[in-house]
Amino acid sequence: MKYTQLFGKTLRNVHHGVKSQGFAFLLRGGFVRTHGHGLYSYLPLGNRVVRNLKQIIREEMERLDGQEVNVPLVNPIEMWQKSGRDRLVGSDMVRFKDRTDRNMVLAPSHEEAFVDLVRVGLRSYRDLPAFLYQFQTKYRDEERIRNGLIRTKEFLMKDAYSFHRSASDLNNFFPKVFGAYQRIFQRCGLNVLPAESGVGYMGGQKAYEFMIPCSIGEDIMVECPNCGYRANKSVAMGLKDFHTGTPQEMEAVETPNCTSMEDLAEFMGLEKHQLAKTMIFKTMNGLVMAVVRGDHEVSREKLTRYLGEPVLEKADQREVETLGFVPGYLSPIGVNGTIPLVVDGTVAKSTNLVVGANKEGVHLKNANFGRDFESVNVADISMIKPENKCLQCGSPLQEVRALELGNIFKLDDFYSRSMGLYFQEESGKKVYPFMGSYGIGIGRLMGAIAEQLHDKRGLLWASRIATFCFFLMGIGKSDSVRQKVDRIYAQFSTDTLLDDRKESPGVKFQDAELLGIPYRIVLSAKRNSEDTVEFYNRYSRQSRLVHIDDVETTMKRILESDDLPTQGA
Amino acid sequence: MKYTQLFGKTLRNVHHGVKSQGFAFLLRGGFVRTHGHGLYSYLPLGNRVVRNLKQIIREEMERLDGQEVNVPLVNPIEMWQKSGRDRLVGSDMVRFKDRTDRNMVLAPSHEEAFVDLVRVGLRSYRDLPAFLYQFQTKYRDEERIRNGLIRTKEFLMKDAYSFHRSASDLNNFFPKVFGAYQRIFQRCGLNVLPAESGVGYMGGQKAYEFMIPCSIGEDIMVECPNCGYRANKSVAMGLKDFHTGTPQEMEAVETPNCTSMEDLAEFMGLEKHQLAKTMIFKTMNGLVMAVVRGDHEVSREKLTRYLGEPVLEKADQREVETLGFVPGYLSPIGVNGTIPLVVDGTVAKSTNLVVGANKEGVHLKNANFGRDFESVNVADISMIKPENKCLQCGSPLQEVRALELGNIFKLDDFYSRSMGLYFQEESGKKVYPFMGSYGIGIGRLMGAIAEQLHDKRGLLWASRIATFCFFLMGIGKSDSVRQKVDRIYAQFSTDTLLDDRKESPGVKFQDAELLGIPYRIVLSAKRNSEDTVEFYNRYSRQSRLVHIDDVETTMKRILESDDLPTQGA
Repeated sequence: MKYTQLFGKTLRNVHHGVKSQGFAFLLRGGFVRTHGHGLYSYLPLGNRVVRNLKQIIREEMERLDGQEVNVPLVNPIEMWQKSGRDRLVGSDMVRFKDRTDRNMVLAPSHEEAFVDLVRVGLRSYRDLPAFLYQFQTKYRDEERIRNGLIRTKEFLMKDAYSFHRSASDLNNFFPKVFGAYQRIFQRCGLNVLPAESGVGYMGGQKAYEFMIPCSIGEDIMVECPNCGYRANKSVAMGLKDFHTGTPQEMEAVETPNCTSMEDLAEFMGLEKHQLAKTMIFKTMNGLVMAVVRGDHEVSREKLTRYLGEPVLEKADQREVETLGFVPGYLSPIGVNGTIPLVVDGTVAKSTNLVVGANKEGVHLKNANFGRDFESVNVADISMIKPENKCLQCGSPLQEVRALELGNIFKLDDFYSRSMGLYFQEESGKKVYPFMGSYGIGIGRLMGAIAEQLHDKRGLLWASRIATFCFFLMGIGKSDSVRQKVDRIYAQFSTDTLLDDRKESPGVKFQDAELLGIPYRIVLSAKRNSEDTVEFYNRYSRQSRLVHIDDVETTMKRILESDDLPTQGA
Repeated sequence: MKYTQLFGKTLRNVHHGVKSQGFAFLLRGGFVRTHGHGLYSYLPLGNRVVRNLKQIIREEMERLDGQEVNVPLVNPIEMWQKSGRDRLVGSDMVRFKDRTDRNMVLAPSHEEAFVDLVRVGLRSYRDLPAFLYQFQTKYRDEERIRNGLIRTKEFLMKDAYSFHRSASDLNNFFPKVFGAYQRIFQRCGLNVLPAESGVGYMGGQKAYEFMIPCSIGEDIMVECPNCGYRANKSVAMGLKDFHTGTPQEMEAVETPNCTSMEDLAEFMGLEKHQLAKTMIFKTMNGLVMAVVRGDHEVSREKLTRYLGEPVLEKADQREVETLGFVPGYLSPIGVNGTIPLVVDGTVAKSTNLVVGANKEGVHLKNANFGRDFESVNVADISMIKPENKCLQCGSPLQEVRALELGNIFKLDDFYSRSMGLYFQEESGKKVYPFMGSYGIGIGRLMGAIAEQLHDKRGLLWASRIATFCFFLMGIGKSDSVRQKVDRIYAQFSTDTLLDDRKESPGVKFQDAELLGIPYRIVLSAKRNSEDTVEFYNRYSRQSRLVHIDDVETTMKRILESDDLPTQGA
C-alpha cells in the first residue's frame, strides 16, 4: 500500500489525558480513533493488526480441532433466565424490549447461546467432545472505561466453548487450551503468566487468567518467586498468622457508634486481629453470613468457590433487618441456622475475639468458635495480606500489578444442568455435558501488545502481527532509485507500505519507527551505492546493506520467518 | 476435515413451516440452525461459506482501493440527532439507556459513524476520495422475519462508504462500485439485475438495488423486456393514460360516508380515474399534501425523491384536524400555502375531477387544476399500474417478484451538511464531501444463493464459495483403498471433507449432493479398478475416471479453477 492512499495518517501529538504510552502510539500511528463514550473505531492499520491476531488465534483453535461458528449477539432473556445468570449480571448487561415487547439482552458472554447451539447441533453423547469458537462483538456497559483499548464497552472477542462427556474428559482437555493460550500470547511476543483466578459471574469451579505485569493493569497478582505459585489476589492463598490464648468468659460491652473495625479497635484498645468481622451477602439462593477476622477482608471469589454458587453484592440494610439482624452489630452467635454461616479458618482458630452482639451499640468480648458459635462451614474465605507467606513453600509472596489478557473457565455441568442440556445413553442414563469456556478480547490484546512492546520511538510488532512487514522508501531525486523502489514495491505490494510522500527522510524514518513495521528498506544513491539497499531491523535497530540483486531473496526469506520483537517497554 | 468430527450433521427432514427450499437445504445440511425469534446461528459449514463470501467481497472492495475499518455497532443517539435520522428510523432501531442514563442505539446502518470517522481520520480535502468498508453485525428489529436468512433481525453486513470532493467525483466513482457489485454476485453464480430504487431512510437522491427474480422475494421489480429499463415498483416510471374533456362548472355534492375511493366511485357512479385522492404525510420538516388520481397510489419513494427529504408515514387524524383539514374529505382547493402541495402529473392533466370539499360529507365535482387549485409542485408521485407502458420505448412493462441482494446509494452531501463534516480549501471555501453508501447482507446473500442454486438433491455452491472443494470417500473394506483415501486426504485435508462414517455409500452420496460440494471423489475396488478414481462433478452431474497417479494433479488443477454452478432452481 502507498502511504499517501492510507486512510488515517500519523499524528504528532495526542490528547493529554492518555495515560497508556502504548495507546498513545496507537492513536498517533493511526491504528485507532476514539468517538468518545468508550467507543473506538479501528482504522485500516488497526484492522490489519486485528486480522493478524485473529489468524493466529484461529490457527491455535483449529490445532485443537476447534470449529468456528457464530451465535447471535442478541439473546432473548429467557435463555438467561434458564441459566439463572439474568440475576447474576447487573448493569453490565444491556437489556431492551423489542417491538413486540419481548425482553432481549446484548449478551456479555455466550455460554447460554452455545448450550442452545449444542442442543440443536448434536444428536448423541457419542458426538462429544465438541470444541467451538467464534469471533464476535460484545457490548458490556462497564462502569469504568480505561486506558484506551484495555477496557472498552464494545469489543471484539474470541470466545470458545468445549463440551465433554465427563469431568475427566474436560480435565484432560483443559490443559490443551491452556497450552494454546500460552502459544497465542507467545506468538504475539508477550510473556504471559497464568494465574488462578475467581470465576466471577461465569459459574463453575476453577479458572485461570493469563496475566502480564503491567503498570496499567487492573488486577493485583500474587506470586511466589521461589516456587512459582501464582494467583489473582482475589483468590490467592497464603500462610496466615494465628493468635491464640486461654479462652476467657464471654461478656457484653457497650460500644456506641462502633460499626467499623477501625472505630471498634480504637474504642476497645485492641488490635484488629482481635476482632471478628461479620457480613451478610446475597447469593442466587438467598443470603449467607460470612465471618472473617477484623484485620482481613472477605474474598467474595473464595466464598463463591466454597459455596459453589456466585456470591453477589452485600445484602442491603432492609433485608438484614427483616431477618432480625442488627446492621453494624452483626453476630455469628445465635444465628442457629437462620441463614448459612461460613467462618474463615483464622476465626475458627482464634480465641477470645470481639464479635457483634446483634444488638445496637453492644459487642461481645471473648467469643470463641466451637464454644460460643459453631458452623460446619469453615473455609478460607479471606483475602491474603502482603505479609503472608507462600502456602506451598513458605517464601514471602509478592504482589504485582498485572493485566489480564485472557481467561479460561472450568464450568463443569453448571450450565448443562441449569439449562437442561443432556444426552441419553443406551442405558437411559442422562449425560449432562461438562463444559469449559475460554475468552480473549482482541482489542485488549492489541492494546496490551502496544503497551508492552514499544520503545520511545514507537511500537514493536511481531512480524506475524505487524500491519506490513516492510516500510519502503527512496531518498533523493534519482530516477533510477525511484524505478528500483517501484520495482520492489510492485513485487511485494501486499506486505509493503511504500512511503511515497513528499516529506523529508527524517519524517519518514520517524513514522516508520512509530508504526513499528519490522523492516525498513531504504534506497538512496547518496547514502549507499546505487546497487545496495539498506535493511533496518526495527527490533535490533541494526542496519545492513544488501546487494540489489539479493533484495528479492532477502525479502522472501524475511516473509517466511516469524520474528518476535525484543521486549521494549 | 473428517465428517465424523464435524459439528452439525445432516438432517433428513426439517420443520414444516419452512417455505424456502434453499433454506430447508441449509438447515438439513447443517449450515445454520435457528434459536427462534428470528435469531440464527451459523454452524461450521455455514461459517465456511460466510468466510468465503467475505473473501470475495474483500477482494472486490480492495480492487477499488477500499480500506477495511471497523466502527462501533452501538452509537450514542447524539450522532443520529445530528443527521436527523433519529426521527426517520422507527421501531427498527433498538434504543436503550446505558448505566449513566445516556441514550444509545444499535445502529441499523453506519453513515453517521463513518462521517465521524472521516472527521477524525482525514486532515485535508486533498486526502479525498476515501473508500472505506467494514463487516459488521447489524441488528434491525424488523416487523416481519421471513424465509430463514432472507430477513433476520441480526445479520452480518458488508457496508461501505465513499467520500468525495465533488458531485462529479462521486458520479465517476459510483459506476465502479456498481461494477464491483455485479462481479461479486457473478462470482457467487448469481445473475443479478440492477434496478433503480427508492432511498428509504438513507437520504440522498439516487439508489440502485441488485435484484434476482425469486418467488420468495419481497419486492416487485418492473422491467421492460424491450429496452431493459428496470426499477423497483416503488419508483418505476411508466406512460400513464390521461382523460380530458371540456372543463365543466364546479359544484358541491353531498357524499355521506364516502371516505374511500371505492365508496365514492360507487356512490357517484364514476370510474376511479375521474376522482382525485388527497393525502397528508409527515416529513422531517412538517406536513405535506399529495394529490394523485383516484385509481393511483401515492409512491412515498417518488415523493421523497421529489422533495429531497424522506417522507414518513401518513399524518395522524389529530395533526390533520389541527391544521383545519377534515379527514376523509381532504381537498387541495383552498390550501393556499398552509402546507406544501404536491400534485401528480396525471391530476394536473385531467379535467373535471371529483375532489374533497374539506367539509364533512361533501365533495366537489368538476375540479380542474390551474382553475380551481394550483401548485408549483407538479411531479410524478404515483405508482405505475400493470397496464402502463415503458416511458423509454413504449413497450408493455412486466412485473417480476424479486429479491434485493445489495444496494448502493448516492447520498450527495446530505450527511456531511447535516453533520457539519467539511474541509477548508486554501481559499477558505468549505468542502462538504459527497458521499456514497453501499451495502450487502452476507446472510441474505447466502440464503439467496441457496434459494437460487439448488436442484432437488441439494445445494449447488460455486467452487470459490463451497465449504469444501472435495467430498472424499472410499467404498468397501479393502485396506489398500483405505490407505489411498487416507493418502489423498492427508495431502488435501484443508479443502476436503472426508466421509469417514460407517454409513452406506447411498447415504454418503445423498449427503454429498445435499451439501453441494463441487467434486465427489470415490475410491472403490469394486466399482472401479484399484488404480482409478471416480471424480463426480456436482454441477454437470458427470463422472469421469482418473488414474490414481493423476489424482494429485487433477485436484490441484480443480483448486485453481473458479467453477460456477449451472443455475439449478
